[in-house]
Amino acid sequence: MAIEINKNLFRKIEQLVGNQSDAAILSLLGDEHHADIAEILDELDLDEATYIIKLLDSEKTSDVLMDLDEDTRERVLKNLSAKEIAEEIGELDTDDAADIIGELSEARQERVISEIEDDEHKADIQELLTYDEDSAGGLMAKELVKVNENWTLTRCVKEMRAQAEEVTRVHSIYVVNDDEQLIGRLSLKDLLIAPPKGNITKIYIPKVDSVNVHEEAEEVAKIMQKYDLEAIPVVDDNMILLGRITIDDIVDLMKEEAEEDYLLAAGVSQDVEADDSIWDLTKARLPWLVLGLFGGLGSVFIMEGYEEIMSDDRYRHLFFFTPLIAAMAGNVGVQSSAIIVQGLANDIVKGSLFSRLLKEIGLSLINGFILGILVIIFGFITNMGINFSLTIAISMMSVIIVAALIGTFVPIILDKRGIDPAIATGPFITTSNDIFGIFLFFYIAKIMLGF
Amino acid sequence: MAIEINKNLFRKIEQLVGNQSDAAILSLLGDEHHADIAEILDELDLDEATYIIKLLDSEKTSDVLMDLDEDTRERVLKNLSAKEIAEEIGELDTDDAADIIGELSEARQERVISEIEDDEHKADIQELLTYDEDSAGGLMAKELVKVNENWTLTRCVKEMRAQAEEVTRVHSIYVVNDDEQLIGRLSLKDLLIAPPKGNITKIYIPKVDSVNVHEEAEEVAKIMQKYDLEAIPVVDDNMILLGRITIDDIVDLMKEEAEEDYLLAAGVSQDVEADDSIWDLTKARLPWLVLGLFGGLGSVFIMEGYEEIMSDDRYRHLFFFTPLIAAMAGNVGVQSSAIIVQGLANDIVKGSLFSRLLKEIGLSLINGFILGILVIIFGFITNMGINFSLTIAISMMSVIIVAALIGTFVPIILDKRGIDPAIATGPFITTSNDIFGIFLFFYIAKIMLGF
Repeated sequence: MAIEINKNLFRKIEQLVGNQSDAAILSLLGDEHHADIAEILDELDLDEATYIIKLLDSEKTSDVLMDLDEDTRERVLKNLSAKEIAEEIGELDTDDAADIIGELSEARQERVISEIEDDEHKADIQELLTYDEDSAGGLMAKELVKVNENWTLTRCVKEMRAQAEEVTRVHSIYVVNDDEQLIGRLSLKDLLIAPPKGNITKIYIPKVDSVNVHEEAEEVAKIMQKYDLEAIPVVDDNMILLGRITIDDIVDLMKEEAEEDYLLAAGVSQDVEADDSIWDLTKARLPWLVLGLFGGLGSVFIMEGYEEIMSDDRYRHLFFFTPLIAAMAGNVGVQSSAIIVQGLANDIVKGSLFSRLLKEIGLSLINGFILGILVIIFGFITNMGINFSLTIAISMMSVIIVAALIGTFVPIILDKRGIDPAIATGPFITTSNDIFGIFLFFYIAKIMLGF
Repeated sequence: MAIEINKNLFRKIEQLVGNQSDAAILSLLGDEHHADIAEILDELDLDEATYIIKLLDSEKTSDVLMDLDEDTRERVLKNLSAKEIAEEIGELDTDDAADIIGELSEARQERVISEIEDDEHKADIQELLTYDEDSAGGLMAKELVKVNENWTLTRCVKEMRAQAEEVTRVHSIYVVNDDEQLIGRLSLKDLLIAPPKGNITKIYIPKVDSVNVHEEAEEVAKIMQKYDLEAIPVVDDNMILLGRITIDDIVDLMKEEAEEDYLLAAGVSQDVEADDSIWDLTKARLPWLVLGLFGGLGSVFIMEGYEEIMSDDRYRHLFFFTPLIAAMAGNVGVQSSAIIVQGLANDIVKGSLFSRLLKEIGLSLINGFILGILVIIFGFITNMGINFSLTIAISMMSVIIVAALIGTFVPIILDKRGIDPAIATGPFITTSNDIFGIFLFFYIAKIMLGF
């Protein structure tokens, strides 16, 4: 598709930077896409990356900066002066500019902002910085094309030409009234196929989706996805048009959220990557392992209560089954919670709690029954004695039912209380199910075998 | 934003359908967005849903059909005749039309296709059906706006007006040569701000990203995401322009893939939802539970080898720690594999295998050391004896290192062999780590305690 990114290229660039062969670097990278250059810079040393950023023209490097890994960007920005950052920012759309400034320390933010030359751009960025990062305001850009409902088509095209030069992509033209309130939209296509003479009032579409500036980012993503929108205008409480959100930002948001959920379910908090430092990885992983450790130590206490049956060779084989019981409790719980968490995210968990209860019990009975039969077959093959096999099978089935209920209802309860249910999948459910499972297993075995 | 979807609405619609109050249904739903109507129909009985589909105008219902849940759509389509389906298909873009036809049985596909009236539309759909579902060809639509490089701007605008009427959204205008080969693009914006007189050759951009029709869908998603594209043209091996892929289809694809990976990591295969039937849910969950069961039974065998130490009250407490060891092995393995799977998906797992090995060992040593200290503190509080505590701590640390290595390298090896590494996270890693963990735990304890 574009430049081939491999070890040879890195070696070549390192050499060129070492020799300060500016012309050769420019001819090698100058025409490449900013996303490719960013991918290359992510792999280079900080000094080399900074050298190239300073060498290339700021129209290109501003986009490269946006595409860098957050860690690399942070380090590169530390190497640039406030004035140099302000120059890059000047080339960016307001939403990207605000994102980059938002990553700086507060003192640095002020210095960079004061260095921005274009006053309108500066004011727009300052406005965007006031919104919550996870809201529509935090996602939107101020760049858009808007026309007044009272304009003629000729004036409209003329004004749009001027506005469009500053907007990277024109999806829709927004129509506002004299109070700057959003009242409709006009697509470029409509304009293209409309008769050249006429008035905006006649051809604009009065029905336009919009979101409030304080709407949650996740909700905006859902709306744009549901209605297949490529851009959505953002308004304040009085329907005054403030900005617009484009689908590329939503795509990035969706990807980030999917990755976070995936890692969280595996017991890795924070958005870490395989190439992060050992320290960052430890911070993300250790807390969940400590939770698991406490859970395991809890099981130790439960089993200590049954130490005496270890002397009795009719019963002591029960202890061989504890990892099996813990594994089943954990697996079933994680399955149930993953399905529910996904359902909650897609708003498809409907119907009463009672019917969901019945469904989970039914499902667990089927799974538990089949797995129980397998245990009994195993017992038959290994001469376990039918009483003992039955005890294992029945207590395992009970554990499966309870594990499924915990896996189902913990996320639902968290969700009802406004806590992200995704946190409940993974280690949290595994750990609590381990303890409950082992407790229940010995308790039922005790009743059935009568020790 | 739009109609409020709640129980009252469902009750009202059921009543209206029961009374066959067509006018009232039309006035209630006729102006609503197809995505909202689909959400409503997903909740109604099949007969009610079919009644409404037949009542509404096919320009609307074709889009509604696309937005329905796959299960609902399958059932609704069974209730429609081949001719009725062909009418809906006639209103859809070719990519959506091909997707719907692709879901029908082969005999039915032929009947529906033969009922499509527009010959060009029919030929386009038939072409699309020949491509693999998971390739660029399976994602693309035939609808696009293209102009010949030799046209004047005036002719271009005229031709585009005609073409644009059939294209839902115009992102780019593709420029082809006389052989229909893609040679560049033109944005509507460029056309808008270009001087009215002139020639296409002067204003078109010769650099245009494109994908081959046989490229994997996942790769197309990566490219569009990396370069922030809203549409990408699809070409054959001779660069002849065949169609285009738009970002809304990529958004849907990304969402589906993220959901599948999430569920797979939790031991749920196939794309099931909380509201699917018990039978579908069992099929998706049971195989992984059986795998877990076999793993657990494997641990039983390992522990049977140590049955004799149950009579010795210096050692038998080791058995209390098996769920703890299994949990740590499982948790660490799942963490490592999730991070690697995510890294592989993002192409950020670079560097040599040896440096990754060192990193995982380093990370495990830190985590294992801290967790080991906690175990020793626990042992001190519960009077376990320092020798015993140290044994647990050191064997747990070894288990953590081995579990991390398995979690890291199994996905890397699968990936190198062209197998989706996502399958290795979750139950597969948990189960194998349980067995290895328990084996290693007793083996090291045996050496350290000398039984």
